[in-house]
Amino acid sequence: MISFESDYTNGAHPAILKRFIETNEESVSTYGFDKYSESAKTKIKEACKCPEADVYFLAGGTQTNSIVISTMLKDYEAVVAANTGHISAHEAGAIEYTGHKVLTIGEEMGKIKPEELEKYLSGFYSDENHEHMVFPGMVYISHPTEYGTLYSKAELEGLSNICKQYEIPLYMDGARLGYGLMSYDTDVTLADIATYCDVFYIGGTKVGALCGEAVVFTKDNAPKHFMTMIKQHGALLAKGRLIGVQFDTLFTDNLYFDISRQAIDMAEELKKVLIEKVCRFFIDSPTNQQFVILEDSKLGELKKELKVSFWEKYDDTHTVVRFATSWSTKLEDIEKLRELL
Amino acid sequence: MISFESDYTNGAHPAILKRFIETNEESVSTYGFDKYSESAKTKIKEACKCPEADVYFLAGGTQTNSIVISTMLKDYEAVVAANTGHISAHEAGAIEYTGHKVLTIGEEMGKIKPEELEKYLSGFYSDENHEHMVFPGMVYISHPTEYGTLYSKAELEGLSNICKQYEIPLYMDGARLGYGLMSYDTDVTLADIATYCDVFYIGGTKVGALCGEAVVFTKDNAPKHFMTMIKQHGALLAKGRLIGVQFDTLFTDNLYFDISRQAIDMAEELKKVLIEKVCRFFIDSPTNQQFVILEDSKLGELKKELKVSFWEKYDDTHTVVRFATSWSTKLEDIEKLRELL
Amino acid sequence: MISFESDYTNGAHPAILKRFIETNEESVSTYGFDKYSESAKTKIKEACKCPEADVYFLAGGTQTNSIVISTMLKDYEAVVAANTGHISAHEAGAIEYTGHKVLTIGEEMGKIKPEELEKYLSGFYSDENHEHMVFPGMVYISHPTEYGTLYSKAELEGLSNICKQYEIPLYMDGARLGYGLMSYDTDVTLADIATYCDVFYIGGTKVGALCGEAVVFTKDNAPKHFMTMIKQHGALLAKGRLIGVQFDTLFTDNLYFDISRQAIDMAEELKKVLIEKVCRFFIDSPTNQQFVILEDSKLGELKKELKVSFWEKYDDTHTVVRFATSWSTKLEDIEKLRELL
Amino acid sequence: MISFESDYTNGAHPAILKRFIETNEESVSTYGFDKYSESAKTKIKEACKCPEADVYFLAGGTQTNSIVISTMLKDYEAVVAANTGHISAHEAGAIEYTGHKVLTIGEEMGKIKPEELEKYLSGFYSDENHEHMVFPGMVYISHPTEYGTLYSKAELEGLSNICKQYEIPLYMDGARLGYGLMSYDTDVTLADIATYCDVFYIGGTKVGALCGEAVVFTKDNAPKHFMTMIKQHGALLAKGRLIGVQFDTLFTDNLYFDISRQAIDMAEELKKVLIEKVCRFFIDSPTNQQFVILEDSKLGELKKELKVSFWEKYDDTHTVVRFATSWSTKLEDIEKLRELL
Repeated sequence: MISFESDYTNGAHPAILKRFIETNEESVSTYGFDKYSESAKTKIKEACKCPEADVYFLAGGTQTNSIVISTMLKDYEAVVAANTGHISAHEAGAIEYTGHKVLTIGEEMGKIKPEELEKYLSGFYSDENHEHMVFPGMVYISHPTEYGTLYSKAELEGLSNICKQYEIPLYMDGARLGYGLMSYDTDVTLADIATYCDVFYIGGTKVGALCGEAVVFTKDNAPKHFMTMIKQHGALLAKGRLIGVQFDTLFTDNLYFDISRQAIDMAEELKKVLIEKVCRFFIDSPTNQQFVILEDSKLGELKKELKVSFWEKYDDTHTVVRFATSWSTKLEDIEKLRELL
Repeated sequence: MISFESDYTNGAHPAILKRFIETNEESVSTYGFDKYSESAKTKIKEACKCPEADVYFLAGGTQTNSIVISTMLKDYEAVVAANTGHISAHEAGAIEYTGHKVLTIGEEMGKIKPEELEKYLSGFYSDENHEHMVFPGMVYISHPTEYGTLYSKAELEGLSNICKQYEIPLYMDGARLGYGLMSYDTDVTLADIATYCDVFYIGGTKVGALCGEAVVFTKDNAPKHFMTMIKQHGALLAKGRLIGVQFDTLFTDNLYFDISRQAIDMAEELKKVLIEKVCRFFIDSPTNQQFVILEDSKLGELKKELKVSFWEKYDDTHTVVRFATSWSTKLEDIEKLRELL
Repeated sequence: MISFESDYTNGAHPAILKRFIETNEESVSTYGFDKYSESAKTKIKEACKCPEADVYFLAGGTQTNSIVISTMLKDYEAVVAANTGHISAHEAGAIEYTGHKVLTIGEEMGKIKPEELEKYLSGFYSDENHEHMVFPGMVYISHPTEYGTLYSKAELEGLSNICKQYEIPLYMDGARLGYGLMSYDTDVTLADIATYCDVFYIGGTKVGALCGEAVVFTKDNAPKHFMTMIKQHGALLAKGRLIGVQFDTLFTDNLYFDISRQAIDMAEELKKVLIEKVCRFFIDSPTNQQFVILEDSKLGELKKELKVSFWEKYDDTHTVVRFATSWSTKLEDIEKLRELL
Repeated sequence: MISFESDYTNGAHPAILKRFIETNEESVSTYGFDKYSESAKTKIKEACKCPEADVYFLAGGTQTNSIVISTMLKDYEAVVAANTGHISAHEAGAIEYTGHKVLTIGEEMGKIKPEELEKYLSGFYSDENHEHMVFPGMVYISHPTEYGTLYSKAELEGLSNICKQYEIPLYMDGARLGYGLMSYDTDVTLADIATYCDVFYIGGTKVGALCGEAVVFTKDNAPKHFMTMIKQHGALLAKGRLIGVQFDTLFTDNLYFDISRQAIDMAEELKKVLIEKVCRFFIDSPTNQQFVILEDSKLGELKKELKVSFWEKYDDTHTVVRFATSWSTKLEDIEKLRELL
């Protein structure tokens, strides 16, 4: 069985487990005040070229979205997201559970176009009845998006400028950020993201960690008593070292970037195989997720030896499936796939 | 420096880390459907002698309390807890954040007495205006309590009977459950807890895991679509194996109980030293937390070489401190303490 | 100045004020247990031909939507509404404030087509990942819709059947129900609504009352302790007589229907004038709201002597405006409009 | 039957109904922008000697408490109230429903003593673990209290100073404010309240209106977009005139104060009768609520001709009952009571 099912079916990068063992006996401070968390924060700030940043660690993506969004919004505010945004549909109503609406707008391949955002916001404020509606109070984007696509630097700057004009923060969901940064096809660096986003998170769970995301507030704008609110949401880990050690390892000797690059290299190899085998692409994705349209009969047959993710029905006889590579994908997996196809 | 500060300053029991490494390369199902989680659930049900139980894994104690309580309560219901209950004061309003009140009642050394509960509930329903108040919809107890004390089997049965009479569930917070079960001074088994409680959790974070608590619904009473609501609270781990592997290890070959016993043995040794050194006990605790009244001047001196937790001021010149042993406490730590005192 | 701005700019029907005075000196029970509320409930159940109904009074429409929806949904459920539904956009996030998502689906002139609903619900359950999404737990429709349009009896039956199949309630927002029932162009009676809807409300605020809506649960399905939850939402009036007296008056001697019919008669006269003056209709509405496309320059001029509601921009030089008649509109108002146009 | 059951069993003061009729035909702005609401606000600001105040109208007391408290608190904050505070026990968990805890502290006859508050707040901040608890973010007092007692000007000043020191607002629930202001035994004026409180409300429902409370923000501190949040809570009345007309009437020609004085005069007459008939007082109340301890057998007999409120059991054979006078109590009611007793 070959698996391209997702980027989180394997465990952690071995370097992380090794570090757990090395640090295990030490008695350290709890609730995130341990030295590994501190060290990880320092390294992340350096990697972001953003010394004034505030960094917090949380366990997972939905948790991070829910806490960041609900603590940054005022009661009368909602978050603006693409129709296809992860928070819009696939987080079990986690944002609404905190009392906030997700205002959805149109997208192109998962991306919010600056023009579209500007149109939406100016439309809102020109509506005479807008005091009877929730106010757009934040913009949520994902990078890579749910379709594996990436914003260009110019697009991020465009979104950032609009957000500044309307005085609302721009928030980036970076669940797969490493794969975006290491794409062959991007002009966006981690420092750019720290420049253009008011807050974003660096995904660990899908990029080599067992769990954990690093939230970065870039403009001295972490909500007051953020730790208390993390606890209020049930998200404060007693042993903060669990995530601290992982991110400290990932941000030592470029590991986060190297393993992300490995996934991208494998995705490019995968693409070659898919092209060679005359597969039809659903989207042109420059990251570790590749979306391919397969005939249902062929898919049925392949499934005996291949694990991929169902994405959506394309038409009555075809299905869109997702192939995901990860830091743990090996060249031999791609070879096996070539043979199989 | 000797540390008796808390039972979660160290990492995980080595057997857990070993197991992480052994299982790391396998590609397994996500979101808790992996084989380690399945195996752990089976072992926990056996340990509880409760084959009909439903078991779920969550990352931490406050998260567990918040999710269990809010999903089991109706909108018009509140949870009844002791004044000193962890949810009453020390969880940053996490229960109220979900929209539910914590109704507090009197306690004795952290324990809710059955008579007190009966008085409270009958008083509520005899109030003519009770439709203008939230209804008591669940009873929360902790075992060991926040003071290290334990319910007897008779007390648990008493509370259980009252809850049955009022048709509300009895919920036990078992953040330190292992230390309660292995106390020299208890007649309560894990099977008893499964019998008397409608839902309880087996603490991992404070008993040898890096994180994780196992919620056990004992009466075929897990809330419908509980997994969806776990996600809604931001608590669904993508790599469910993180907790699955830990509990599978803890419930293999009696490990959970053995390491808890180690902490209790060390606590009994600690008590001997404290008695020998004529320390005054604040409470008579049969578990791994020992509360001692120290003169402030002495405490100041000891702090140079000893870490303990501040509990509360006793009077103008004395302070109550907590000594906590854990699965990782060694006899030599106790010896060092004897010398120090 | 002639006003067709809305159906709630005037006070109450005079019969209501008269009744306030007649009953003012009596000392009656509070919190909705007064004899006027009781009498009004009986009359409403008769008018609905639904003796088993439970009737509750609330003060306004958004309040009613918020309370009915949040108390009928489980935590893991969301309400399905048309994109144009009042709860989707114009209630300041009141539904989300209670923790529930509004799932929006396509509509035609404000109406949810049964086929569309069926497609949506079957699509949801056929999605392999639906446990990661909130469940559709209720269907919200408005009648008349926000565009003044009406469901036919067959359409209501269709929606009702689908809801039964998926075991979720059908809820009708009847803020302007009287105007729907008295339309020249409807085959739907109040009894039909009680048959097909699991819960609905009869609007008072926009149909002759100073405030107040009557919620009707038709299937012995009022949420348990509904009164306590009304109070929890801050909506329990100490002097329940305020709404009781109003609905008792409206449902005596057919008043609710007669005054609604007056508004419809006036709307039909209004239509004649608009047609005569060659106005272009934006929608063909059979109720008291008429939507007309006016040239901006003409609108600017008319505004000096006419109050209508801005609806939306039609194109660069035209605007859609709404004319609303009400129980208090008089034939002379229509005459004045004819002269003005 | 003589009724001293409560101060809201009758309708509205006749002047209010008269004014409804006079203004009924006018077409006015909706959602609280009508001229009556504007006029009422101006008059209230004058009566408070607080020209910079912001005034808003809401329908009832629990609604007002819920909205004011939840919109003024940050997510990490709770409101401090007396154990006996209305929000602590008798509002069906309405505050917790908005996600905020009510922190209760000891009281004397319903009043929070400044010393007690200071002790509580300084205790909170001296706790090393306070970041794991919700922060006290507002102080709630009621005046008159639930026991009919009143704060002195010095006590209000004391509370106000402590709140200023801790930078949290002081909020007064004035459901029965008129009766407090017109007590024979008070040195507190409406202007004093505007000086010492950051926000308070002037009760209408229990002081002559059919419904309605006037919220007064005294320090240019109304929450941003307060109207939107009122709507979000379901509390924005389409016909704002309903409350505007009532408060405009109550604050014309001193009506609010005159009718409150009438209730106090009657309460003083009532006290005389109760003393004359050798009744035992439970509390010494200077306002319109009088609490008396009656033998159960005697109470049983009286109930045939007298309506009073059950307050609480005093002992096995005695009960505390509440007599409430109101603006509508007449001297002949007192006379009848004398004869009855």
